Amino acid sequence: MTEPLAPGSVIGILGGGQLGRMLALAGARLGFDIHIFDTAAKGPAARVAARSWAAPWEDDGAVQTFAARCDVLTFEFENIPASALAAAESAAPVRPGRKSLEFTQDRLIEKRFIREAGCSTVDFAEVNSVAGLESAVARLGRPSILKTRRFGYDGKGQAVIREDTDLAVAWASIDEQPAILEAFAPFRRELSIVAARAMDGQMAVYPLAENTHSDGILRVSTAPARVSPETEVRAVEIAHAIGTGLDHTGVFAVELFDVEGELIVNEIAPRVHNTGHWTLDACACSQFEQHMRAVAGWPLGSPQPHSACVMTNLIGEDISPWADIVADETACLHLYGKRDARPGRKMGHINRLSPLLD
Amino acid sequence: MTEPLAPGSVIGILGGGQLGRMLALAGARLGFDIHIFDTAAKGPAARVAARSWAAPWEDDGAVQTFAARCDVLTFEFENIPASALAAAESAAPVRPGRKSLEFTQDRLIEKRFIREAGCSTVDFAEVNSVAGLESAVARLGRPSILKTRRFGYDGKGQAVIREDTDLAVAWASIDEQPAILEAFAPFRRELSIVAARAMDGQMAVYPLAENTHSDGILRVSTAPARVSPETEVRAVEIAHAIGTGLDHTGVFAVELFDVEGELIVNEIAPRVHNTGHWTLDACACSQFEQHMRAVAGWPLGSPQPHSACVMTNLIGEDISPWADIVADETACLHLYGKRDARPGRKMGHINRLSPLLD
Repeated sequence: MTEPLAPGSVIGILGGGQLGRMLALAGARLGFDIHIFDTAAKGPAARVAARSWAAPWEDDGAVQTFAARCDVLTFEFENIPASALAAAESAAPVRPGRKSLEFTQDRLIEKRFIREAGCSTVDFAEVNSVAGLESAVARLGRPSILKTRRFGYDGKGQAVIREDTDLAVAWASIDEQPAILEAFAPFRRELSIVAARAMDGQMAVYPLAENTHSDGILRVSTAPARVSPETEVRAVEIAHAIGTGLDHTGVFAVELFDVEGELIVNEIAPRVHNTGHWTLDACACSQFEQHMRAVAGWPLGSPQPHSACVMTNLIGEDISPWADIVADETACLHLYGKRDARPGRKMGHINRLSPLLD
Repeated sequence: MTEPLAPGSVIGILGGGQLGRMLALAGARLGFDIHIFDTAAKGPAARVAARSWAAPWEDDGAVQTFAARCDVLTFEFENIPASALAAAESAAPVRPGRKSLEFTQDRLIEKRFIREAGCSTVDFAEVNSVAGLESAVARLGRPSILKTRRFGYDGKGQAVIREDTDLAVAWASIDEQPAILEAFAPFRRELSIVAARAMDGQMAVYPLAENTHSDGILRVSTAPARVSPETEVRAVEIAHAIGTGLDHTGVFAVELFDVEGELIVNEIAPRVHNTGHWTLDACACSQFEQHMRAVAGWPLGSPQPHSACVMTNLIGEDISPWADIVADETACLHLYGKRDARPGRKMGHINRLSPLLD
């Protein structure tokens, strides 16, 4: 085991968007100095950090110089190029480690890992050609969903295969990238579980959240989700299986489909997650603090909420009536300091608290 | 009325210690960019700010240049030199305003204001010489407390007049500064109330906290304090009278003595206050967020707590067993990023939450 980092140590974050910003704020609260590496200068995280660096991911020297100033590194997004990760690892420990990234950067490897960990997924098939797509659709049926194996998020790199979808067009629409086809899950609702794993294997699991998406983007999370005790127990088992299987350090999230009470794993995010933003105001220790604790080698905080919470994302022009939003006394407001409210861009979120029900 | 500041605006803070740091973190959460002016570089607040400036308070040009980059200014401590304040005011609005500073920088003016506002104080007398001290002690008795009118905090600039105290020695011990003598208050306990006042006069008052000091430094605050409904109502009246009387914008704190159920005002702090740190974890809107809302011209958030809280300061060497402190799952930990744990120095604090009692 590594010694825990003393307060005042430097934690470096690869990536400088809103997740990096909220990680930086949580790390500062614990007395750490936060350094940010991002491709753009003065992004959301850099403006709350002790120091920031702007360079392309391809600049291995810059990544290495940044890493050498840090006691430990973490990241706000999982699609860090392999060469940048190697450059970072050459100068400082990166937590979570390579396994968490490699197993979640590729949907095919991820699905196979989930099954090996004893968890359920939808049926899926590897797709490398139109012919492969045709045979996969023949097996999994319509509707089904074609997804690139790598670099997809917020609904990007996906095509729904409906009754009338031309498979050649669908294949072209994802740029003929290596892909998987996923069977349609007749889910009643979308849930997610956010958990943290410490370096000694200790785990802290937050209650399930129930999530609503539109246009592939999360809109609302409600936590704790109203589920049976059996479902909550099963979700905790899933979190333990995945966290342990990845030998993960830090926070991760598991997106789940609730199909007639059975929990089907949709995907894993090896990082803090939008469906865990409710913990900022409803728990004594938020997902961001948990992550910083874990990467610093500290024991985890309590994941018990003191309040129930409805988290609403502010997307693009949602932020325009900001004067009304800030006047809502029931809203715990989080804005990310982004300059332009482009469509689909996450500008902030609101947490609304209420007393916990038994 | 001034228009509310849009998210992304720059709020400048005069002073870069732990109060500035916690204000900066709260302002960032609301989407503001925070600039810090401090006499030392890379202090606690500068390391979480978008930009920071280091120069002596006497450098009016530096203060003015700093202020010109900000949309509004505030401060973390009330003893800002008059010339620096004038330089700042020449370039940007400073909130709270001059009246709040002038009325609280001088204990004699403060005490007179408190009485004019309809609130009680202990008996007091102006002292400008040993002879004046002798006649004041003759009137107010022993024990009593001699305090410099200006620049006292955390027990500094004070001398207790006991039965055997030589008055000439006491007068010398406060460097023969203009002073007041205060009668001893036979208080049962020390309370405080933290409140915020918006630019339109709206007020948000947090519940009373009960405080324990030692060596003149706050150790523990417990909130909400267990008081009668009448006491709570009287405290809210006091907060309204003082906030309105100062025409204050932002957070302020009123330290109170509970003398047989009567609330005696000890002193006013025209800023966020150590006895309000419990609001960081026990309220949806902390005193730091309230202050940033007020100085931005925003409506205030709710001051209602969702939990009860015991706040414990970490002073000097209290921080040495940090590995044990961070392992306490019941502790919400706040560390200020200070490098040296000097005696009496506030290094951080811990909030411990529990369910609210009725």
